[in-house]
Amino acid sequence: MKKNFILAIDLGGTNLKIALFNLQFRLKARKVFSTQCFAKKAILIQAILDSVENILKENALDLNAVLGLGLGLPGPIDIRRGIVHFFPNIPGWKRVGLKKILERRIGLPVFIDNDANLMCLAEHKLGSARGFMNAVCLTLGTGVGGGIIIEGRLYRGVDNAAGEIGHMPINEHGSNCNCGGIACLETYIGNKRILSYAKRIFKRKISLEELSLLAKMGNKGAKDIWSEVASRLGIALCGVVNLLNPDVIVLGGGIANAGRVLFQGVRQTISSRAMSIQAKHVKILKARLGNDAGLIGAAIMVKEGVRL
Amino acid sequence: MKKNFILAIDLGGTNLKIALFNLQFRLKARKVFSTQCFAKKAILIQAILDSVENILKENALDLNAVLGLGLGLPGPIDIRRGIVHFFPNIPGWKRVGLKKILERRIGLPVFIDNDANLMCLAEHKLGSARGFMNAVCLTLGTGVGGGIIIEGRLYRGVDNAAGEIGHMPINEHGSNCNCGGIACLETYIGNKRILSYAKRIFKRKISLEELSLLAKMGNKGAKDIWSEVASRLGIALCGVVNLLNPDVIVLGGGIANAGRVLFQGVRQTISSRAMSIQAKHVKILKARLGNDAGLIGAAIMVKEGVRL
Repeated sequence: MKKNFILAIDLGGTNLKIALFNLQFRLKARKVFSTQCFAKKAILIQAILDSVENILKENALDLNAVLGLGLGLPGPIDIRRGIVHFFPNIPGWKRVGLKKILERRIGLPVFIDNDANLMCLAEHKLGSARGFMNAVCLTLGTGVGGGIIIEGRLYRGVDNAAGEIGHMPINEHGSNCNCGGIACLETYIGNKRILSYAKRIFKRKISLEELSLLAKMGNKGAKDIWSEVASRLGIALCGVVNLLNPDVIVLGGGIANAGRVLFQGVRQTISSRAMSIQAKHVKILKARLGNDAGLIGAAIMVKEGVRL
Repeated sequence: MKKNFILAIDLGGTNLKIALFNLQFRLKARKVFSTQCFAKKAILIQAILDSVENILKENALDLNAVLGLGLGLPGPIDIRRGIVHFFPNIPGWKRVGLKKILERRIGLPVFIDNDANLMCLAEHKLGSARGFMNAVCLTLGTGVGGGIIIEGRLYRGVDNAAGEIGHMPINEHGSNCNCGGIACLETYIGNKRILSYAKRIFKRKISLEELSLLAKMGNKGAKDIWSEVASRLGIALCGVVNLLNPDVIVLGGGIANAGRVLFQGVRQTISSRAMSIQAKHVKILKARLGNDAGLIGAAIMVKEGVRL
């Protein structure tokens, strides 16, 4: 039987998304489950298995039609051995050999990687970073993740832990970060930080979407908040630009929807503070693949992994 | 006639060093000229030509015995076209096609690159970074330069301007840097900054060597100064470690002679502030090739360049 499909899962702190792609990475089916109730490791693993069974059944496919399963996971991964080091936002996972567990239970080749790496892979293969040799991709959400393309290939570092742009310090002193660091970019521009700041300014709870909308309508308070986010993101990116001299930086995730005020602010900070040669060249673009970038990247990983 | 020798030049703001290597990168001869009096571009180019003629004559060699000339230069270089963009500390150089000028005048293949890149190349080929796949090398002097080895090869970035670790900001606000940036690492730990700080503490002029010696003898003022340098260098390196997840960071240049107080301080900052997986792996080593690293790197570039 011809293996015409790829299964991809994007596991986050709130959702488990599963999708079925064809070999050209076209989305054939997609389902979302809440992970809030999967508190225990064994239950979460069972939920992964159930989601695979469920999507195959709904699409009247059997396993023989599937090339493999790729998972994008919210934490550091040892890809060579298929081990989850830990998940910063999901308790109970420590050195879990997830690849082997799933391969044994499902009977398919399984590939796992960090979600930010896969988002970067997808944006480079099919999105905004396509055609560029040296690219840096960021996902701006609860956490600030990143991935790096060097000379056309995903750069992983010695422990597959490269790309943690959210944990570059932008000040000597500042708040403690979940990662153990101090004054990391994420402590300034993580979703929660922006929302709590906005709540102080507007004296009520406000969503990121509303904050973006208000800024687009010219509201000064909202514009100021985004300008500050842009400035701090821009300062961290000055370090990245001077260090890596990339062709392009791609911004994805919820915060990247803030629009012009954010992108203009980032560009302005880089053009005024980064070194002239590096700053002149680098493009700052919005991610093109949206929320499905992680799923698409997981599917790409499977196709490339099986081919190797 | 067999081409058994390579000529290498390391041009700095104060000195022009020229050396003769054999094809195994053994130093056969070496001369130093002051560049202080070569204020004009034409005079400096003539001094390069004279130094080549001089070293060949003194060693009774003719041009036919030489494979090529490599130059390490103190500024951003377009290596593909052999053009000097500019020198931050030598006036009068702007978009100079130095490779062509020298090839025409000398009649040898000429290769030019940034001095920090060449130091990194040398340390990776023959020094402390040897055998590591992913390495970051720093030269700590008047300026703070750097080079990056990715998967065993020098990583240059899109404009050959990667590796500018000295120009990663470590604070949002701070002093203006020569590069146009604000609060760059170099504004805190460049030679001049350290010396002027030491002068304030000791109420007299003091050299880097003396400052290192005092620290080794346990002088509190000197130890405090180096601890602060180590902490700031360490903070910038936390960003590098979290971003690139390298195997090794090699520290060279005058400041790297401060010894234990500096290296311990850097290691401590990284182990306490960088992410655990990345911090656990990375080694912080002293450069092994000393002041000749730039010359050796220039010779390596010639051999690799001619072989291509």
